[in-house]
Amino acid sequence: MNKLIKAIQNKNSYLCVGLDASPIYWSQDIPSNVQGLEYFCKSIIEATQDYTIAYKLNLAFFEVWGHEGLETMNRILEFIPHDIFTVADAKRSDIGHSASFYAKTFFETYNFDSITVNPYMGKDSIEPFLEYKDKITFLLGLTSNEGAEDFQLMGDPPFYEQVIRKSMLWNIHNNIGFVMGATRPNAIQTLRNIYPKAPLLIPGIGAQSGDLAKTIQNAYYKDTPMLITISRAILYADTSKNFLQKAKEKALNYYQEISQILHELSLS
Amino acid sequence: MNKLIKAIQNKNSYLCVGLDASPIYWSQDIPSNVQGLEYFCKSIIEATQDYTIAYKLNLAFFEVWGHEGLETMNRILEFIPHDIFTVADAKRSDIGHSASFYAKTFFETYNFDSITVNPYMGKDSIEPFLEYKDKITFLLGLTSNEGAEDFQLMGDPPFYEQVIRKSMLWNIHNNIGFVMGATRPNAIQTLRNIYPKAPLLIPGIGAQSGDLAKTIQNAYYKDTPMLITISRAILYADTSKNFLQKAKEKALNYYQEISQILHELSLS
Repeated sequence: MNKLIKAIQNKNSYLCVGLDASPIYWSQDIPSNVQGLEYFCKSIIEATQDYTIAYKLNLAFFEVWGHEGLETMNRILEFIPHDIFTVADAKRSDIGHSASFYAKTFFETYNFDSITVNPYMGKDSIEPFLEYKDKITFLLGLTSNEGAEDFQLMGDPPFYEQVIRKSMLWNIHNNIGFVMGATRPNAIQTLRNIYPKAPLLIPGIGAQSGDLAKTIQNAYYKDTPMLITISRAILYADTSKNFLQKAKEKALNYYQEISQILHELSLS
Repeated sequence: MNKLIKAIQNKNSYLCVGLDASPIYWSQDIPSNVQGLEYFCKSIIEATQDYTIAYKLNLAFFEVWGHEGLETMNRILEFIPHDIFTVADAKRSDIGHSASFYAKTFFETYNFDSITVNPYMGKDSIEPFLEYKDKITFLLGLTSNEGAEDFQLMGDPPFYEQVIRKSMLWNIHNNIGFVMGATRPNAIQTLRNIYPKAPLLIPGIGAQSGDLAKTIQNAYYKDTPMLITISRAILYADTSKNFLQKAKEKALNYYQEISQILHELSLS
């Protein structure tokens, strides 16, 4: 948690780059194999590290390469500068007995600073993660996808709100955060009313077209960390040989835009 | 699906052995490393394959070893006789874009016959799995753990029932199944009333102490596959050098017990 707060203070930003790397999208000059995966991710990290406070690694994009993908992921993870926060976007869930093995996987086998977890299986599926007191466990709050309407928004009050309220009772180490899609700004406001100081991980800006200014305004709470995750809009801003130059420009643009919004918020 | 139905017919059983392998539990004569993991799982497969129609591999127990654990898992998967059905107990969930990479991981990178999936993120998080028409995707129905009461059993009708009803609408390829904990026999009955022909994956017998006869009675529907998963009660029936002999005996006991229950059901 301290590492994240420090990173935010140092760079005065919330920008988190999501490394959703796939040969389906990346430049044709990069080979479609794990060597390409490593080259692409490390290049993106070099190009964007001055403007980002965190990198989010979505496990799906590494697991698809089999065990070599995981080996590569670990090298990429170790390549990230130590003052930059890391998120394992794994959305894991299992009964307590198995969940403890997942917690060990991401916090010990791999040394991630945080993880995303699906809370649907309840308290015992979450607790093994929370026992790592110096790590942040982001529970799914309200996700950015269309399918969130199927179950998370069902009921009155909506189901996701009941999940947030109940999980507060488990937050004895103050290390629970929430994933809140930028595509649903009102829900972010609701969460902030219930739970002012929860760290937030916010996907849905960029390719999923959430509104950046509105999102930060609703999610802002003094001295409380949030991560605005942008993946495809930076990684694939250009798919020619110049992709790194363009990714760097895009990251800088988002960085400046966030700084500007933050500046206006602190004045108001 | 056909492979599973055939396996059930051939052996007249529903027994699925869960390979939840960890040095915390296995015999001290086996080394605490990935070589031990491979030896333990392959030995258990050899000892139990005559009595089982399926093996369930919980990803947590392989991922915890890092990339070497996944490499080992793939060798174990390939070691399973081809007429025995396989389940990736992965409980994955993500937005459609990422979910398609998970589907590819388990159905192509690794050649599993089925997977468990957490439905909480809704339709687009499930669809990429369903597109593999010849594979079974087991959605979490009502899980066997205590935490199931936190959210899955919330509301009236309970939330899990609403999940089952809605997901039926997505079942255009008839390849959705459900995970239903044996610790909740009434819920299995409810599911069978809503959805008579859904394949079921039923954990919770053995270490979690669900009732075998009651479970099968409630879950039975003619020509409809179900898997009764038993993990720790077989794998760790004995933790001495004789663990294989004891695991074999235990598997045979469960096999015979299931056959007996099935025999009585077919007579009634």
